[in-house]
Amino acid sequence: MKKPYSKTDLPVWQIRKYLEPGPIVLVSSSWKGKTNIMTMGWHTVMEFSPSLIGCFITSGNHSYKMIEKSGECVINIPTVDMIDTIIGIGNTTGQQIDKFKKFKLTPEESQTVHAPGIKECYANFECRVVDKHLLPKYNFFILEVLKAQAPLRPRYPKTVHYRGEGVFMVSGRHIAFPEKFLPQNL
Amino acid sequence: MKKPYSKTDLPVWQIRKYLEPGPIVLVSSSWKGKTNIMTMGWHTVMEFSPSLIGCFITSGNHSYKMIEKSGECVINIPTVDMIDTIIGIGNTTGQQIDKFKKFKLTPEESQTVHAPGIKECYANFECRVVDKHLLPKYNFFILEVLKAQAPLRPRYPKTVHYRGEGVFMVSGRHIAFPEKFLPQNL
Repeated sequence: MKKPYSKTDLPVWQIRKYLEPGPIVLVSSSWKGKTNIMTMGWHTVMEFSPSLIGCFITSGNHSYKMIEKSGECVINIPTVDMIDTIIGIGNTTGQQIDKFKKFKLTPEESQTVHAPGIKECYANFECRVVDKHLLPKYNFFILEVLKAQAPLRPRYPKTVHYRGEGVFMVSGRHIAFPEKFLPQNL
Repeated sequence: MKKPYSKTDLPVWQIRKYLEPGPIVLVSSSWKGKTNIMTMGWHTVMEFSPSLIGCFITSGNHSYKMIEKSGECVINIPTVDMIDTIIGIGNTTGQQIDKFKKFKLTPEESQTVHAPGIKECYANFECRVVDKHLLPKYNFFILEVLKAQAPLRPRYPKTVHYRGEGVFMVSGRHIAFPEKFLPQNL
């Protein structure tokens, strides 16, 4: 097993650093004593303060019901070493199996929601559903991030970004040009 | 100047291949005889059919008004060689300058909307605004892709993915595991 990350609290607006680049995330949920995990690629940051995320979840999905009913979830960022787990979670349904057990993942108690985070993931963002109006037409949840945790090192995790058809892009090198930006645009 | 891409039509549902990995995009618009371009990082795929994209645009932005009034835009995917253009477009406002001229970009006539595409970008997705209900509360546009164009080669462009604070992640290597997916999950 890989060495556990030593995570610290982030200001919730800083989640853009991890989510705006578009990684595949694992969404954990809890409802009536059961937990579940799903793989998600269709999400976006929507606001800094409050810290909002918008995301699409197919309504036939077991996690859809759990998140809709509990009004909560945790967004966890997995890294490329977890690729088999990422694909396996997408291939299975929580109606039949306990995904934490099946994929040997460690549920980590959250502080603001009942849904557990996934210890093996790089970052954990505890979220509350704040707007369900787009569910009937678009299956689109609007979430507020209540608490965010990530390690200080590694600074930029190797994440995977899905293209469909079984192909993932792995995050590459970083380039920084803060001096070229107007301060208000950083 | 770099060699122009030879682009072909894509089925519109295939835009996920380019947008789901989370690249920075350039959004071009047209209203009352003027054009504009903005840089955008907060977007997500929302549906295959119709091909929907959701995106956040600050309401104070000049492009916000142009897209809201015209009900149209083109989402263009720039590559890492255009990094100075990407940053420059974010630093300037179309109220004062013609961004196509200022950044030596070539407007390309669209087929389904009045807004021109950007010839130098890897891909061009012509879009119509299909839902404005989230604008007052969230500055969130829902767009339908009417026409999509991209070259067959290079297969995976080197895109940039913003983390804030002047830092971009450049898209890295690709890994493919179609055999590990359930067919309905590809």
